Formats: sequence, structure tokens, C-alpha cells
Amino acid sequence: MADPILLDHNATTPVLPEVLDAMLPWLRDGGFGNPSSDHPAGRRARAAVEGARSEVAAALGGSPEGVVFTGSGTEADNLAVIGTCGELAAARIVTTAIEHPAVEGPCARLEGRGATVVRVRPGPGGRVAAEDLVGALSGDTTLATVMLANNETGVLQPVAEVGAAARALGIPVHTDAAQAVGRVPIDVDALDVDLVTVVGHKIGAPKGVGALWVRPGLALRPVLVGGGQERGLRPGTENVAGIVALGVACRLAREGLEARSARVAALRDRLEALLRAGVPGLRVTGEGLPRLCNTLHVRFPGVTGPEVLARAPGVAASTGSACHAGTTEPSGVLVAMGLDRADALGAVRLSIGPATTADEIERAGRWLVEAWRAA
Amino acid sequence: MADPILLDHNATTPVLPEVLDAMLPWLRDGGFGNPSSDHPAGRRARAAVEGARSEVAAALGGSPEGVVFTGSGTEADNLAVIGTCGELAAARIVTTAIEHPAVEGPCARLEGRGATVVRVRPGPGGRVAAEDLVGALSGDTTLATVMLANNETGVLQPVAEVGAAARALGIPVHTDAAQAVGRVPIDVDALDVDLVTVVGHKIGAPKGVGALWVRPGLALRPVLVGGGQERGLRPGTENVAGIVALGVACRLAREGLEARSARVAALRDRLEALLRAGVPGLRVTGEGLPRLCNTLHVRFPGVTGPEVLARAPGVAASTGSACHAGTTEPSGVLVAMGLDRADALGAVRLSIGPATTADEIERAGRWLVEAWRAA
Repeated sequence: MADPILLDHNATTPVLPEVLDAMLPWLRDGGFGNPSSDHPAGRRARAAVEGARSEVAAALGGSPEGVVFTGSGTEADNLAVIGTCGELAAARIVTTAIEHPAVEGPCARLEGRGATVVRVRPGPGGRVAAEDLVGALSGDTTLATVMLANNETGVLQPVAEVGAAARALGIPVHTDAAQAVGRVPIDVDALDVDLVTVVGHKIGAPKGVGALWVRPGLALRPVLVGGGQERGLRPGTENVAGIVALGVACRLAREGLEARSARVAALRDRLEALLRAGVPGLRVTGEGLPRLCNTLHVRFPGVTGPEVLARAPGVAASTGSACHAGTTEPSGVLVAMGLDRADALGAVRLSIGPATTADEIERAGRWLVEAWRAA
Repeated sequence: MADPILLDHNATTPVLPEVLDAMLPWLRDGGFGNPSSDHPAGRRARAAVEGARSEVAAALGGSPEGVVFTGSGTEADNLAVIGTCGELAAARIVTTAIEHPAVEGPCARLEGRGATVVRVRPGPGGRVAAEDLVGALSGDTTLATVMLANNETGVLQPVAEVGAAARALGIPVHTDAAQAVGRVPIDVDALDVDLVTVVGHKIGAPKGVGALWVRPGLALRPVLVGGGQERGLRPGTENVAGIVALGVACRLAREGLEARSARVAALRDRLEALLRAGVPGLRVTGEGLPRLCNTLHVRFPGVTGPEVLARAPGVAASTGSACHAGTTEPSGVLVAMGLDRADALGAVRLSIGPATTADEIERAGRWLVEAWRAA
């Protein structure tokens, strides 16, 4: 049987052919150098890493020297939160109740050590109100961390509003842009943010590489300790092939962003229309709110998301984040939004990729409606 | 100009063709799945990760469930040290004065927070005496961490002796086996160790993947916090292609180890003979001590290592660890051995790989002698 139609791009994305082509030389003869080595193979690797650094920075509108390459988005998020707050006895963090575990986890760990963590809850549509976040800021706040787009619902969060208010108070702002890069324009100055998490495998680079952009001048303490790589902020021999891949993926994410987003949004809208037409009582999370172009989060009435997906083997999707797969509890994000249990358990996340076709959308929509009827 | 002869395999190694072939399907169509996703691509990725886990375990003689995949050797070392000692107000760590920065760094950080770190110094040959290490153990020791082979000198350290003594006292033992895998046989039970660091790019896998083997039952607290991957010990989407590569590299490291080591040792001995014959007064570090088969660490008389290497552009080698490249200070390892400054500055590390040829050794030996004479 052919592989199912992939509508799970928020979990991970196929490596783009252009990205793979660019990384292969760094896995073959002559491309194996250690960027810290002072001989030709090493110097070539160093140049490749620096080229990728510029591409990642350009995708964020930031300076290349701010880019710190990491081994994952989780590591970048940990570095942002622990790197700014980890050494303080009385840190105060303002965040949301719907962050990814890679942000919530370090916040909770610091809370256990005496930090204050204010988790602002979203409204029923999944968006945290800007005024609630801004109102939670105070002169003694150490860090504000607010995701740019929620990984489950796709709902955009008011990062720019938080950024502007935090700037006035001198509070650094982190945003986890894992799901946003390549889907919405990102500019660190327009957003007024100081730390941005980028994840390779959400944008067509392989798993195992990410980056944290750090505004030059912001003091950060490394989480991992060792050699001097990445200005000492992320020691360990650089994943050269992965970093090159991330650079190319960031360039592709930036190029043609507007046209690609419009095309993907049209597919998303068509899928939404198909499901609404076929499933009376279907609820669309974040309806009327700004959402990622590629994400359609719906709640099927009267059945659970796993029941629908089990009857639609031609569609690869998920009921929450991939981290959450396999559980029968409602997603924490939906609980934070105040949805009742039965409603939350009907959730299915459908996330489209740049290579998704109109025909796939038609088939997936039909199969999902049939699956709901049969469930 | 052709690339120089690579005698810097302790810095990093070319990716083995068989390893690249094995990882490519996980970077192409159908191989992109997130191991946490409950659909076919995800399940295939999960199975591949578990297969690699068995291979890594087999290379260490340990159980697969003990393997925790990380993004680097540095991360594995940090997890071993901070994961066992990080939450204790009064940890006591016994280690050596010649550990890699990825072990020394976290030890120093914990020391700054109140831990006691006992750093046992090596003798002039570069080996730390077993009795000194065993004598430093005490009932209140939290962790002993001793590298299996030094990354600069190649001198093997008395891990098994420390392991046996620590076992009797109930102290967990970590060993950084970054340079040892594939070069000396490793068996976690024979060594009596509880934590072992493995690094992909030292054994023909790409950069950006490593593993920490953790003896089942040993409590460890994660350094990075987030999702539940790797039993919660290393959250973040798994680097599937890198993990598959590490698995194959570990299998190849184990297979034919004895014959490969003997062949490499013969090349090392030949290079040593060439240099001794051509450079009166040459000193060989660790002479008469057990050393890695592939590593020849020498000190040229009357000149510095960088001066020799600058005049031997046909040889790619280093004067210390890659992390240390570009500095003009003597290596901390050699200082800890008690070498005087002029002697230490004459150091060159020549590290052979499995694909190094006899002809390359003849040419490299000749060029290095000529370079010394011209320097």
C-alpha cells in the first residue's frame, strides 16, 4: 500500500531535495572536517558553518553573530530559558499555558528551584490575549517566553505586542518559532524579540539540528559545558552537514514565503470547507483568529480523534503534538483553552506541507468525512 | 592540490561509505517520520532507532535499554556528570586532571556550586595511576569519571581498576570512551562502569550524534527538559538518520576490531620508527604505556608543533585536541603531566584511521622529518 497522504507536517517534514543535495558533500570525501581543525578540511567546514549562520540569520532578519547552532529545538528552547534564568535564585518568567514541553519543561524545572512562573491562559479560541501577557510583565520579570504559533492549533500568539511592552521594561523576550519559520514572515526587530528558536526538521532540514538566535549583547549562560564552540554557548563538535542543511532550509523558507503561504492557505481552506460540509457540528479551533497557513485543527463531534484517524488509514495526521501521540488524555493545550473533555478528545490536527497537492486535499477530505460517518 | 594525508582521526573521521548508505534512506522519501508519530512513517523511524540502539549496546557489551541517544559526545558527558551530581548540594566527584573539556566543564560548573572535585594527576607518561584514583574514592563519593583513552596522547587510563574499586563502594563510574570505541574492546561489565560516552564522528558516523549508555537502575536526571523521548532523559525529536548512522558505525567498530587494531598499530609503529630515525631527541608520549593503536603523540625537540606542521602541508594533523587548535599555549593535558613548557610546545598528535595506507605513512613520516629539519 502506498504511504498515506501526509497531513502531519507540524510533527516533522520530509527533507527537501535541495537541502539533501547541499548536505551530502559534508557527509562525503573531503567534507568531513572538524570546523575547529586548522587544516584544509577543517577550514572548509568552518566556512560552510558560517555560510549557514548567515542564512539562518537572514530568515529571522537578525545578525549572523546571534545564531547559536544546537542539536534540536528542545535544546534551543532550554538554552533560552535556562540560559537567561537558570542561575538566578529569584527569576520571574512570564509565559503562556500552551507552550511546547521544551519551553514549559525548563520553566517548571526552574519553578521547582524557586523561580516564579506566570502562565497566562488562552481564550477559548487558543490565542492568549496580548493585554493579559503585557499585564503580567513587571519590573522584576527576568524573561518573557511566548511561542509564535501554537504547534497543535496553529493559532498565532501576540508576540510583537509582548515584545514592545517588554522592550519598554527592559525584559528579554524569547519566542519559540518552531512552527512559524517558513509559514509567517519573521523579523526579530519588528517582533522586538531577543531570543528565537528555529527547528530544522519542521522546515525540510533533517532532525538533529536547530538554532537559537540571541540578540547581540544579551548575556546567556550555556546549558551544556565543554569546548569553546558557538562562542562557548553550545560546546561540542558542530554538526556540519546538519547545519548546512538548516542554512539551506532557512533560505528556502524565506524565499517565496508569500506565494507559498497563500497556496498552502488555500489548500487549508479547501480542506476546512470539505470537512465542514461533510461533518455537521464540526468545530474549527481558532476560527476567526490569525492562524498558521498550513494548520487545520478541528474537533469532530461525537467521536474521538483517534477513532476518526483509525478509520482513515489513507491520511497520516495526529490528534495532538507528536510528543503526545498514543495517549488517550485530552491535550494540555485544549484543556488550557477551557474545552470540555469530550470536545477536546474529538481533536485532529491536519498540517499541510509545501508539496501537498490539491488532489491529496480532496481525497483526504473525503476520507476523513467517511471515517467520521463510520466512527 | 590534493588534500593532505589525514592523520587527525582523533579530531574527527570521514563518514564511512557503509554508514552513509545506511543513513540516506532516512533523509529521503518515506524515511522522514517522527518516531513519536503513530502512522507508518513514524513507526518505521521508531524501528530504525531501536535497531540502532541494539547496535550501540552491542559495541559496549551492554543492554540496549541503557542507550540514550544525544546530539553530541559533549551532551553525553554533561548528562553523565550533571545527571548524577547536578541536584546534590554536596556532590563529590573523583576524576582526572586530563579529561576532555566536556567532562571537566560540567565538573567545574558543579564545583562552582559547592561540589568537591578531586582531579588526580597523571604521571609524566600521561597515565593516571590506578592506586591514586582508587585512593581518592571514599564512601561519600558521588561519581568517578575517568576517560578510557586520552584524546591527545592516546594513553589508556585504568578504568577497570577504578570500576572494581568503585563497585565495592557503591559509587557509579562514568567513562568517556569517545576515542576508545572501535580501537580497544569495551565491555561495560568487564570495566565495571555504569555510564559510557560514545561519539559518532570519532568512528565514521557524522557529527551531531552521540550516546550515553546508562546501566539500568542507575537514577539519572535529564539536563535538557521537554518531551518524553529517550525515557525523558534526552527530550527532543530523535535524529533518526544520525542515530541509524551511529548504529552502523558501532557495528563496524565492533566487527573486525582485533585485525583492524593490529593493522593500525603496525602503521603507528612504522610512523614512530620513521620519526625516531629522522629526529634525534624526539620524545614519544606514553612510551611503554598502553596506548590507543591509532595515536602517536610526539614532542619535537627545539621547535614547536605548529612550526613543524606549518612546514608539512601534506600532513593534516594537530598539536593538541581540535578544541585547542589555534592557541599557542601548551596543552592542559601536557601541563598536567608535568612537562616543561618548551617540551609541551613541541607536541604533535598524529592519529591514524582505518583507511590510512602504508604509503601514506611513509610519505607523512618523510615530510614530517623534513619539516622538522627545516624548522
